[in-house]
Amino acid sequence: MAKVVENKAFGLAAKDNSGVLSPFHFSRRETGEKDVRLKVLFCGICHSDLHMIKNDWGVSIYPLVPGHEIVGEVTEVGAKVTKFKAGDKVGVGCLVGSCGSCDSCDEGLENYCPKLIQTYGFKYYDDTMTYGGYSDNMVCDEDFIIRIPENLPLDATAPLLCAGVTVYSPLKTHGLDKPGMHIGVVGLGGLGHVGVKFAKAMGTKVTVISTSESKRDEAINRLGADAFLVSRDPKQIKDAMGSMDGILDTVSATHPLLPLLGLLKQKGKLVMLGAPNKPLELPVLPLIFQRKMVTGSMIGGIKETQDMMDMAGKHNITADIELISADYVNTAMERLEKADVRYRFVIDVANTLKPNPSL
Amino acid sequence: MAKVVENKAFGLAAKDNSGVLSPFHFSRRETGEKDVRLKVLFCGICHSDLHMIKNDWGVSIYPLVPGHEIVGEVTEVGAKVTKFKAGDKVGVGCLVGSCGSCDSCDEGLENYCPKLIQTYGFKYYDDTMTYGGYSDNMVCDEDFIIRIPENLPLDATAPLLCAGVTVYSPLKTHGLDKPGMHIGVVGLGGLGHVGVKFAKAMGTKVTVISTSESKRDEAINRLGADAFLVSRDPKQIKDAMGSMDGILDTVSATHPLLPLLGLLKQKGKLVMLGAPNKPLELPVLPLIFQRKMVTGSMIGGIKETQDMMDMAGKHNITADIELISADYVNTAMERLEKADVRYRFVIDVANTLKPNPSL
Repeated sequence: MAKVVENKAFGLAAKDNSGVLSPFHFSRRETGEKDVRLKVLFCGICHSDLHMIKNDWGVSIYPLVPGHEIVGEVTEVGAKVTKFKAGDKVGVGCLVGSCGSCDSCDEGLENYCPKLIQTYGFKYYDDTMTYGGYSDNMVCDEDFIIRIPENLPLDATAPLLCAGVTVYSPLKTHGLDKPGMHIGVVGLGGLGHVGVKFAKAMGTKVTVISTSESKRDEAINRLGADAFLVSRDPKQIKDAMGSMDGILDTVSATHPLLPLLGLLKQKGKLVMLGAPNKPLELPVLPLIFQRKMVTGSMIGGIKETQDMMDMAGKHNITADIELISADYVNTAMERLEKADVRYRFVIDVANTLKPNPSL
Repeated sequence: MAKVVENKAFGLAAKDNSGVLSPFHFSRRETGEKDVRLKVLFCGICHSDLHMIKNDWGVSIYPLVPGHEIVGEVTEVGAKVTKFKAGDKVGVGCLVGSCGSCDSCDEGLENYCPKLIQTYGFKYYDDTMTYGGYSDNMVCDEDFIIRIPENLPLDATAPLLCAGVTVYSPLKTHGLDKPGMHIGVVGLGGLGHVGVKFAKAMGTKVTVISTSESKRDEAINRLGADAFLVSRDPKQIKDAMGSMDGILDTVSATHPLLPLLGLLKQKGKLVMLGAPNKPLELPVLPLIFQRKMVTGSMIGGIKETQDMMDMAGKHNITADIELISADYVNTAMERLEKADVRYRFVIDVANTLKPNPSL
């Protein structure tokens, strides 16, 4: 196991549950023989970063350096690294370790490994804490490193490492990637907007489902959706009943499932990606009479993430982002809390995160 | 289309929603060129018969002759019938017609055909009503006739035509039929008890999940389940967490899904077969974090029904029944309403249903 080197990393950390990030000098291990060290260039701000900073899920350990949508340039590789070399443009997503021997790992679904190690806030094999990408450098086992296609802009690609694979994985897993299929996307936020892009790139017809008319123009004219449905309008729902092969539901607020199940064809699939903190009401008859299915999905495995990234490269898919400087991050968190972002904040780490020697 | 012959059939019908069945002379069509005519020997009483008699679902048309677990002997076949001959022992389940050209029909899943014609209470192609198996004879297109294996007792086989395929279909469809898998069966009624038998015959480990201890002995010693869990006992549930590949939930009363989802392994499947008339509470996090799935299933297609019947023949699977005479049917319905039956009533039609010439 590689030795830990003191105070060679600098980042932004939550020190308590106040929601405020502040400068933080910390340690990362030396580059182990299977490790890749990278200079972090950009890091996306995922909504889960906000939850973790504030300990909304009761699992946060402070100090906590968030960030799992990391893009950077390789600066050093260990002796046994075979897939990457200095200068490569690479990404790190939500995972930096897994057991490697369970059924999920065998299937390439490390994201469901019971011993998965997340990119920040988890204990690593050497008992050190993992720290995320709101920091100047990162070190990670090469098996958890994603290659970034050369044609993609690095800043707008960062969010794909989490949001991108979160929508890509269920579309692939549930066979919702066939040209001519009809896919619904509920909610047009960080997940939903890349959901539209990937589903379109797969050749499906995409309908955005939203609570109000306000995003119709954006959905169709900017993101390329084929149609737009207001979920609170019974006539619009009725006209589209039984028309969709699958629905990606990205909404984490409590909301009714009955209209969504109604929109599905027989044997259609409703995939929950947002996590409401209260149970939702499940009408059972549509499941029985038409063999419809409700399931969920959480990020994706490493192979899926690379496949997603390769597809993004081929189709020029990136997130729509607002690039911010490191000193704007606390303001960004306040705006994120109000859903005031289209569609993802990305921190310009390399250019704006400067260590403060006095800290 | 075959001509309708007046007053050549006799049965028991609901004439209104009072819940009472009474003698009824009615008409069935002549044996058409693709039709099989059978003398009904036995007919199971399904819980849905009770709902239909009382118009609980608001779709009943009176007079209504129930019964879709029909076993009989072929008495006549049409000129173009190729699969059956007089004297064959055959069954008719829930379906007597479907469009034959939709995606579901193409897949052999006529039960999900939007134009499916049920065995009773539906309009047939010739605009006559369909009447079920609480009657002395039956006529049915050969494509909807099931062959009964010679070794099976006909009375206890009748319920397989509905209850049997209702549990068999989801086990097969969702890959829950692999030896060594662990299957949960919630509720030990008409569906549940044959669910245990088929799952055992497939080589899986079967755990019955019930609200009280009272059925433990029955489940294990009579039906052959491997284990028994009381769903209201947190300790028993906790000890079995994450152990099941799939669960067949046959309960139609409102009940919590959280413990059932907890019992499933990652990517496990909860299949709803009972139809609660109110929405159930669906916790979303188990679906997301462990890609678990909730779905439903309704009877099965004709090919599945024949496959189920062949498997029943091979493994000597039948329902546990209480054989009753036709004049007991109203009492049986009262007992069924109180779940006072182990596990299925079957009417001894041929021996006890006698036409009343004065009606």
